[in-house]
Amino acid sequence: MRDFVNKEIKKIKPSGIRKFFDVAKEIDGAISLGVGEPDFDTPWHIREEGIYSLEKGNTIYTSNAGLKELRIEITNFMERKYNLKYEWDKNVLVTVGGSEAIDLALRSMIEPGDEVIITTPCYVSYEPCAILAGGIVKTIPLKNENQFRLTKEELEKAITPKSKILIMCFPNNPTGAIMSEKDLEEIKDVIIKNDLVVISDEIYAELTYDKLHTSIASLSGMKERTIVINGFSKAYSMTGWRLGFACGPENIISQMTKIHQFAIMCAPTTSQYAGIEALKNGDDDILNMRDAYNERRRYVLKRLNEMGLPCFEPKGAFYVFPDIRKFGLSSEEFCLKLLKEEKVVVVPGTAFGESGEGFVRISYAYSLNDLKNALARVENFIKKLK
Amino acid sequence: MRDFVNKEIKKIKPSGIRKFFDVAKEIDGAISLGVGEPDFDTPWHIREEGIYSLEKGNTIYTSNAGLKELRIEITNFMERKYNLKYEWDKNVLVTVGGSEAIDLALRSMIEPGDEVIITTPCYVSYEPCAILAGGIVKTIPLKNENQFRLTKEELEKAITPKSKILIMCFPNNPTGAIMSEKDLEEIKDVIIKNDLVVISDEIYAELTYDKLHTSIASLSGMKERTIVINGFSKAYSMTGWRLGFACGPENIISQMTKIHQFAIMCAPTTSQYAGIEALKNGDDDILNMRDAYNERRRYVLKRLNEMGLPCFEPKGAFYVFPDIRKFGLSSEEFCLKLLKEEKVVVVPGTAFGESGEGFVRISYAYSLNDLKNALARVENFIKKLK
Repeated sequence: MRDFVNKEIKKIKPSGIRKFFDVAKEIDGAISLGVGEPDFDTPWHIREEGIYSLEKGNTIYTSNAGLKELRIEITNFMERKYNLKYEWDKNVLVTVGGSEAIDLALRSMIEPGDEVIITTPCYVSYEPCAILAGGIVKTIPLKNENQFRLTKEELEKAITPKSKILIMCFPNNPTGAIMSEKDLEEIKDVIIKNDLVVISDEIYAELTYDKLHTSIASLSGMKERTIVINGFSKAYSMTGWRLGFACGPENIISQMTKIHQFAIMCAPTTSQYAGIEALKNGDDDILNMRDAYNERRRYVLKRLNEMGLPCFEPKGAFYVFPDIRKFGLSSEEFCLKLLKEEKVVVVPGTAFGESGEGFVRISYAYSLNDLKNALARVENFIKKLK
Repeated sequence: MRDFVNKEIKKIKPSGIRKFFDVAKEIDGAISLGVGEPDFDTPWHIREEGIYSLEKGNTIYTSNAGLKELRIEITNFMERKYNLKYEWDKNVLVTVGGSEAIDLALRSMIEPGDEVIITTPCYVSYEPCAILAGGIVKTIPLKNENQFRLTKEELEKAITPKSKILIMCFPNNPTGAIMSEKDLEEIKDVIIKNDLVVISDEIYAELTYDKLHTSIASLSGMKERTIVINGFSKAYSMTGWRLGFACGPENIISQMTKIHQFAIMCAPTTSQYAGIEALKNGDDDILNMRDAYNERRRYVLKRLNEMGLPCFEPKGAFYVFPDIRKFGLSSEEFCLKLLKEEKVVVVPGTAFGESGEGFVRISYAYSLNDLKNALARVENFIKKLK
């Protein structure tokens, strides 16, 4: 019997985070600061709408692109929050989380050999999904000294005649970096001059601590060349519901919808009803959770500073990305040693691309009490290393 | 600005069923016999488990491949129903409906240029998903006189040195055809001799009316070269929950899991909890719904016979596929005329492939009362045509 598996796909490595969690599972009593999802339950009024929809027997398919009411609420949300006007029946697709939307955007646009520029460190899906769709990946390693923002010069250097797509994610997982309107304006001209299309993963857009998020699509000339990816997982603590969306130009959204129709059919119905409630009445939930994250963020930064673990101040998402280079260990060595000696799980920066070497990702989507206990252990560990 | 959309993807036509429904939507007072999903609400005890899981706040990601307990129940189900033994942690992947599982199976196996053999008429996703994954589609038009089963000779004729994958779906949408163990044994040798892998879409496996379903994977020598696709949508009337699964050889399931991890993350959590309940305590629900479908099936066949619309007796799924060739209209003309003159929606056979020309799909997933009213209108229509 021959081997039926595609050779290129075999070469793609599974997520480095998962690999590390598998090691961590074997360690009794480990405290995790590793997971990339909110620790809050989905707010009750949102869960309640899911429950109502089940009680009423709303258990059949929705239209492929998503419930009309949900798509209308998404356009309201995008205008209210980011000053972006979309038409619900032309520019919006409801997906199985932001993940599916990214995959669809890549599948609908890449021609074999097209180059996809990805800023790293980044979320683990972009590169494999781009490769699966037949793209060639060019990474731009972002720098600590630039607070992990993408600069005009870095982007220009990465562009070749084959460049087609730029994937960027701000607020960023794993660094917590954001890009302000001014930062985005800087790179905009390069994008337009080189006729690139942007997949802008803005799943953490509601979690910024200094100023409100600016979507790159809201800059003049950018909406027609940007697919904005967003969703409910982070803002409303709804990861398990698998509900996200893409907004973009009609010609691209319609192709994404076609693939989605064949490969997925529609996003889960219960989640869509809950999503309507989230968008209609969930703004306060976002504010409350954001305040809680911000308190934790400040606490973690203060503690890292006290123990001598240098870290730039992240202004978004719920991660800090301290610099561990001075200890002479690789990211993976640092994390494994920390896990074995002090039983704390943090994720090697290299799980997010080679440019993460020398850094580790600490999530603060944990209670202050858990953070306190875990960081005391990290401090012990650092003392021993010094 | 250049056109960012992939050219091959633009060529893929959207689902013909949807196109037809869009026409139907414009007609006031139309009765539909068109939809391919159960008309029952999901049984209450299953919805209740979904509700409990929401009340308890189980709203976070599950492991990528699905909850352990669900995967164990899936292996129990596959053994109890189809005499197939799988290991929960090696051979099972929980997906967003059967649709995602089919897409993943194709993405994980097709190398550019590989030929994918598809029996038609068939569900609308197979061909576009195969093309999206870089495959070349070869269709086998199945024949009314063979009760739309696949014969050894037809399969042999379709095979070339590039053939790699055979997609088959029995019980079939849209024909309602099944293949017995004996029918499957006939084609098995051809599959093994030509070293093919089978994607067997068995989503309608619990809806057979004469004898129990046989999975092709249960034939000796076939399990190691078959990906069985199944799910909750049809058997438990759970379409909107988007919950399905694939069972197959570890080397293929592990690659499918990798793509699923990056592109989807995990199936919806609420649905997974409900799915455990369905598999544990839902056997009686299946029997009750199957009895109801069978009563409708017999009624529809009797009425079609009375009105002189010839139709082979389908033994599975919830469709009949009458032969309309004697009226001298194309499938699409017949359906449009029926819709305009009598306001009944049935789907042109050509929505499921060219070999559906001359046939229409009538779904009997409707109440007896709706069927009675709609078929009276069909009878009027036929009388006028004669």
